[in-house]
Amino acid sequence: MSADGSDPVERRDEEGVPEAIAERPSELTGEISTLPPAEASKVAAEIRAVAEARGEDEDVAELVDLGSLRGKTGPIPLLPQPADDELSADELRDAWPLLDLEERSDGLRVLPREDAEDFFIALAATDQAALLLHFRPGQRRQWMRLLEPDDVADVIQEAGDDYRSTLLDLLDAPTRKEVTALLAYAEDEAGGLMSTRYARLRPQMTADEAISYLRRQAQDKIETIYYAYVVDPDQLLLGVVSFRDLFAADPKKIVAEVMETDVVRVSDEMDQETVSRIFAEHDLTVVPVVDKDGKMKGIVTVDDIVDVVQEEATEDAQKFGGMEALDVPYLASSRRTMVRKRGRWLTILLIGEMLTATALGFFEDELIPTLALFLPLIISSGGNSGSQASTLVIRAMALGEVRAADWWLVLRRELAIGMSLGAVLGGFASVRVMIWGAAGVYGSHYVLIGLTVALSVTGCVLWGTLAGAMLPFMLRKAGADPANASAPLVATLVDVSGIIIYFTVARLILSGVLL
Amino acid sequence: MSADGSDPVERRDEEGVPEAIAERPSELTGEISTLPPAEASKVAAEIRAVAEARGEDEDVAELVDLGSLRGKTGPIPLLPQPADDELSADELRDAWPLLDLEERSDGLRVLPREDAEDFFIALAATDQAALLLHFRPGQRRQWMRLLEPDDVADVIQEAGDDYRSTLLDLLDAPTRKEVTALLAYAEDEAGGLMSTRYARLRPQMTADEAISYLRRQAQDKIETIYYAYVVDPDQLLLGVVSFRDLFAADPKKIVAEVMETDVVRVSDEMDQETVSRIFAEHDLTVVPVVDKDGKMKGIVTVDDIVDVVQEEATEDAQKFGGMEALDVPYLASSRRTMVRKRGRWLTILLIGEMLTATALGFFEDELIPTLALFLPLIISSGGNSGSQASTLVIRAMALGEVRAADWWLVLRRELAIGMSLGAVLGGFASVRVMIWGAAGVYGSHYVLIGLTVALSVTGCVLWGTLAGAMLPFMLRKAGADPANASAPLVATLVDVSGIIIYFTVARLILSGVLL
Repeated sequence: MSADGSDPVERRDEEGVPEAIAERPSELTGEISTLPPAEASKVAAEIRAVAEARGEDEDVAELVDLGSLRGKTGPIPLLPQPADDELSADELRDAWPLLDLEERSDGLRVLPREDAEDFFIALAATDQAALLLHFRPGQRRQWMRLLEPDDVADVIQEAGDDYRSTLLDLLDAPTRKEVTALLAYAEDEAGGLMSTRYARLRPQMTADEAISYLRRQAQDKIETIYYAYVVDPDQLLLGVVSFRDLFAADPKKIVAEVMETDVVRVSDEMDQETVSRIFAEHDLTVVPVVDKDGKMKGIVTVDDIVDVVQEEATEDAQKFGGMEALDVPYLASSRRTMVRKRGRWLTILLIGEMLTATALGFFEDELIPTLALFLPLIISSGGNSGSQASTLVIRAMALGEVRAADWWLVLRRELAIGMSLGAVLGGFASVRVMIWGAAGVYGSHYVLIGLTVALSVTGCVLWGTLAGAMLPFMLRKAGADPANASAPLVATLVDVSGIIIYFTVARLILSGVLL
Repeated sequence: MSADGSDPVERRDEEGVPEAIAERPSELTGEISTLPPAEASKVAAEIRAVAEARGEDEDVAELVDLGSLRGKTGPIPLLPQPADDELSADELRDAWPLLDLEERSDGLRVLPREDAEDFFIALAATDQAALLLHFRPGQRRQWMRLLEPDDVADVIQEAGDDYRSTLLDLLDAPTRKEVTALLAYAEDEAGGLMSTRYARLRPQMTADEAISYLRRQAQDKIETIYYAYVVDPDQLLLGVVSFRDLFAADPKKIVAEVMETDVVRVSDEMDQETVSRIFAEHDLTVVPVVDKDGKMKGIVTVDDIVDVVQEEATEDAQKFGGMEALDVPYLASSRRTMVRKRGRWLTILLIGEMLTATALGFFEDELIPTLALFLPLIISSGGNSGSQASTLVIRAMALGEVRAADWWLVLRRELAIGMSLGAVLGGFASVRVMIWGAAGVYGSHYVLIGLTVALSVTGCVLWGTLAGAMLPFMLRKAGADPANASAPLVATLVDVSGIIIYFTVARLILSGVLL
């Protein structure tokens, strides 16, 4: 998706290219066109200006600058240094988030061919989809062919159903078949992550035969030759053998003797978050994906898992911040989408928060200025402790450290912790009231007011802690994502109860004195 | 760290083993002892009971149960099925978080030897450190030897300085040297993540020689033979060659012709978060680590990056929830640590929140019950929109999507978004006041009250959005972690300003009417 947030579907009209052109084979054989030199250096200069204005990423600037070492290392260049007026991939990467689709496309066209290809391959699927649809139909095929089937499937899912056949038609028949099979899976399940291009071996091959076979496969486009999967004629997964073990083994041994039969595997419909947890638990580099009959369907490699982990963490963070997950980078989402995704939750929270006015309505007699003074202090103490507790539980659930059945354990822990925290904070709050009170600010009953505030803070902190810790369990039980137990949601829930706690305590302690 | 949260340092006294025993070579040659059969099945039964009580992890239960397929696949077992009274690694993993150190140690001793080793290797460094120090000195060396030098370094860092020499002495001389070199790096920088056991090649070797050389190295303990690094005699990194390319190349070609010279590399002192971003940007599986002179120091592999990404996301989530990062799993941290790490921030927030009482003190005349009613509603709308904005910016910064120099861009976006959101929410809030007001609840001036509330909500939302979005930039500018711009911190900041906005608006609109 581009910087202005319009998505590929909206772009169709702007582009105005008849769909039918995509089908014309004669258009599809041309090279990726490069810009004429004059235009190219203009584009390069513009993009470089954006990159420079944005500055270096503070952290990435730590990257060792190897240009300075060139003198020492003789004829072998360490890093290719672009000519002064040429754009480098790093500059394009720096400027990327701020460029519109046209500028991005031009940027790719001024990069050296190989760099442009690497750059395109490393882009997010949303960006790839937007670019592919932006390219002239004659160019699309060259770019599309750079992508592995699993990446093509992601691009097609991002581009949306309207473009499915246009994009599928760019592929050769066997790849199209592979991609179509992958499109049957949801993006966020193992099947949607997997590559179907894995190395297969038969159990009766010798280690030597297996190595020669893999050597031939090494030239093909398979994802990795370093782990080969041993399958029977029905594609049932029998074992796995690492290239390294094959290599170290007696060449006459058969694969069945060398292979590991105790294979950690995932099902094709497993959620990607679970897959990533299994990678972490078993320290895997690659995992085979099997269907419910145990037949081998593909492999998931750990580099895809890094993306999954980032993506899930981002989703959870955004939900926890009290909004819908954004799905695209911050700078790439349109203002309209932002207002919609953020406004919906804010409205729900506002409606919830309206209950505070209702709750306060029941305490009209207690709502005297002296007590109203401490209202924000008291209810926010509950909200703060609640958001701490919920963030801890949500994160522990996401990492698999805490399970649904552990709610009782968590409740007991949080009860003890909430009481300690409540006592400490209640103490601090009362000190504040006593000092100001001693100065005469709150009249003669300041000790009782201090006591009221202290007990209310203690109650709110305890209640907030318990509510924050239990809400993720309840959401999970109800089939929702625990990450929705957001800081604002917990705060809103606790605000209403905080009001009830505060004024009930006040009624008990101050009745006949101030009230 | 164990389930009861005591750390290894505290455990020294309980254990009561004189340090000197660790030095006696005669003690160090014994096998890892297994429990006598009767005791073993008792331990197994206890651990299984814990695992069962905890239930299956809902998601991981999706894992294909391959036991049912055994009939179909003939003599080759798919997964080793433990005898009925034997403990499986999965059961131990399920029960793990709830076991104390003694039970964990027993659990490892009843697992089949190979499973126990795999299990131990896959544990977190904190657990490994606690167990190593818990094992009798005679046993430690066997367990320690299972670990790669980079993992040993992590364990020693977790165990603390007091145990450094005890644990280092368990290693053979060359490994000790490697580990000592790694210990010079902080845990969270590239040097602390890297493995020093990488494959090295010289540029003048032929592809064939290189393959034979790697074949010999395959039996050694090197991290990966799949990427070999080409270095000159001074260890200056010249290029990288994948095993696959070597394998596919003409055997007579020299390595310098096959290698890739444009190598993405990281500096040994680079922060691990930056390293993980570089992995994601370039879709890497492994990256070479060089020092400031360009000399090769080691490699970081992507499986370690998965852990880094999870760890950083957890830290950020906890900070954003308004507490210090916990560093250990939720169930593994002691209540005392929890109260300390959570209480500190809550106290700071409470003290900040005390300013609300001070602010309200300035508006004593305006603090009439009719206006106090809407106070929580108004200030929370600011807090909620602020926590949304800050979570978006923090996460975008963590992913490198937004840089320090982008603050102006973000400010402009959030200004527009904040105004839209403010208008919508202000509208909703006034509707609430009008409906109740028309019913006579707020007296005759309910329209003006509605207007006051609407304008205040709009102002608070706009202000909250801007403050939430800019706070991460300010923290970063000040050298702090932007993730500290937590939901509770933003809420607290915005509460005070919300009070000022509300009662100033009220003074302007309602002066002479209600006030």
